[in-house]
Amino acid sequence: MKKITILGSTGSIGTQTLDVIANDPERFQVVGLSAGSNTDLLIQQAIRFKPSIVCLSTKEAAEAVASSLPAGTRVIYGEQGLIELAGETEADIVVTAIMGSRGLPATLAAIEAGKMIGLANKETLVTAGHIVMERAKQKGVSIIPIDSEHSAIFQCLNGEDRRSLNQLTLTASGGSFRDRTREQLKGVTVAEALNHPNWSMGAKITIDSATMANKGLEVIEAHWLFDVTYDQIHVLVHPESIIHSYVEFTDHSVIAQLGLPDMRVPIQYALTYPHRYPTPTGRLDLAAIGKLHFREMDFERYPCLRLAFECGKAGQSAPTVYNAANEVAVARFLAGEIEFLDIERTIEEVLSRHPVTVVDTLEAIAEVDSWARQMAATV
Amino acid sequence: MKKITILGSTGSIGTQTLDVIANDPERFQVVGLSAGSNTDLLIQQAIRFKPSIVCLSTKEAAEAVASSLPAGTRVIYGEQGLIELAGETEADIVVTAIMGSRGLPATLAAIEAGKMIGLANKETLVTAGHIVMERAKQKGVSIIPIDSEHSAIFQCLNGEDRRSLNQLTLTASGGSFRDRTREQLKGVTVAEALNHPNWSMGAKITIDSATMANKGLEVIEAHWLFDVTYDQIHVLVHPESIIHSYVEFTDHSVIAQLGLPDMRVPIQYALTYPHRYPTPTGRLDLAAIGKLHFREMDFERYPCLRLAFECGKAGQSAPTVYNAANEVAVARFLAGEIEFLDIERTIEEVLSRHPVTVVDTLEAIAEVDSWARQMAATV
Repeated sequence: MKKITILGSTGSIGTQTLDVIANDPERFQVVGLSAGSNTDLLIQQAIRFKPSIVCLSTKEAAEAVASSLPAGTRVIYGEQGLIELAGETEADIVVTAIMGSRGLPATLAAIEAGKMIGLANKETLVTAGHIVMERAKQKGVSIIPIDSEHSAIFQCLNGEDRRSLNQLTLTASGGSFRDRTREQLKGVTVAEALNHPNWSMGAKITIDSATMANKGLEVIEAHWLFDVTYDQIHVLVHPESIIHSYVEFTDHSVIAQLGLPDMRVPIQYALTYPHRYPTPTGRLDLAAIGKLHFREMDFERYPCLRLAFECGKAGQSAPTVYNAANEVAVARFLAGEIEFLDIERTIEEVLSRHPVTVVDTLEAIAEVDSWARQMAATV
Repeated sequence: MKKITILGSTGSIGTQTLDVIANDPERFQVVGLSAGSNTDLLIQQAIRFKPSIVCLSTKEAAEAVASSLPAGTRVIYGEQGLIELAGETEADIVVTAIMGSRGLPATLAAIEAGKMIGLANKETLVTAGHIVMERAKQKGVSIIPIDSEHSAIFQCLNGEDRRSLNQLTLTASGGSFRDRTREQLKGVTVAEALNHPNWSMGAKITIDSATMANKGLEVIEAHWLFDVTYDQIHVLVHPESIIHSYVEFTDHSVIAQLGLPDMRVPIQYALTYPHRYPTPTGRLDLAAIGKLHFREMDFERYPCLRLAFECGKAGQSAPTVYNAANEVAVARFLAGEIEFLDIERTIEEVLSRHPVTVVDTLEAIAEVDSWARQMAATV
């Protein structure tokens, strides 16, 4: 029986993680859940899965849900509550499905407590990869990626000697605007941007897919997770999202992970690694699909991806600024404050005003993060 | 330093194995070579690689080459010579690149001597899979497949728990006549049949690719190598031969092995398993390839594959008869004695006259093999 805490249980990854758990109640038990604003769903989840602790974002929200929770479920709140939830439950695995850089302190708390991490919060590694990977190594904690691309790479590296790794290729569907020119991106609506062709995901990540900032964050995440240089990371456009990513070894043999786009496969894999068990997902039928397409990534078409490689190579505070500026810009786009093409402009503008600095502590990262957010809110 | 004996060093796999060895002389040393009729090439190979022993098919051939061999290279001959070569050199690995069921006694001799097997002779497992796998298990000998499809499956299973294996998919290019209807196969020439679109291989295997008997032999080989039922083996037409084969696990995650069609990759992998080292082969560039195609196998179009599944499921002597009848029929087609479509007719006719019997010994297999060859020579 694996005991599981989910940070961000009401979001897309959170609800799918609970789907996986509900499908195999003999194998999994929920011990902790956290949510932000979706208190109704959190209450339903708590009633169904009976966690020991739930965490809400504010005291008010915690008080509002308290009377609806099952007996035996304690409610806590706030940033400190999230850190307590991550580190102090009896969980074996903490799934970090919370959005944005808020997931960082809680992820670190889970690592300090020696818990295996099911990593779905890519901003954690983007903003603090050097700190997180070092602490995980010290603590002997495994970080199992849940992102489909990183789970694919992780699966492809199974049983292989890391020294024979030549190159990683992250595949990219191209997002909701993949068939549009840059000219045709002017004035696109939020609704159009949210219409992803292959994956059903949260709003932030769907916009990030359209700008390719998502792939940029994945590139930086892959750098940290798999200990490779940026020159060893390749991005390929693959509209069908069937080959989720692949690895080339020094002998030029390529191992790829494929499947229908369904996050429940990488989620369950993270929960059961190194074992595999049946999932209620569809089976890949390549004959029915008939053709798979591939084309080179166009860094002119997707400047957010180019900027991510630049920030990754610059290192230190640059990825934090990239991520923070992107988060704010996407929020402003979703709120109707700025245009779609302003997202990349915002990131580039904030980066241009930022001299890269050493960020060796969480405090230093938080300071840079905060500066970048303020800047991104106004440029 | 890995010491290597190659059974069948002048054929396609044999010469490519020597290519791999020549590319990394610090890592590999040739200790034994065998050849059939191509004595000139064997002499060249012996001069270059200085094996301890070479084996020729006849006493006359052995005497003819003796004076041209380097000092220190002993020459032996015949079926007994091949068995001695396989078992008695100081080899760590014996690559069984000899064609047809002649490879069987020598492969067993190598297993008895505890040598790792680089298996490129698929008829060994087709005709005596139950005996060979049992002896390898008893001796603790690893059998590493060299066939690109089986090497792919072997690589995909690396680090995985075999109990979570759901299905294997062997990909098939479709061979030299893949775009022809059955009607268009009437009267095709030997030269047309030998023109394989993707792989450069020996004549027998190229004809087997065109009839899909090669895939049929691979299906039976996969059954023995990976301990799966015939219902767990799926064959898919994939004209580009880029995805060499793949595995579906119980969670519906699919792991595939890809690469440019170049046998030197699976050959070297078999020699260096579980490690990987650089090869002088080309790198896969999916963007340059652009599209990969897949379609269901048509068992009406390729009756040789249907027959292979039927023989595999029937077990016992049936695969031996299938293989022997096919070997004779292909030889007769290459000699201009029969038409291309007579190959499948011959196999089906010989099988229809054969009551499946228990074959627990090499002698029993040899008897059935001999009967099937005589029959196939005349029907």
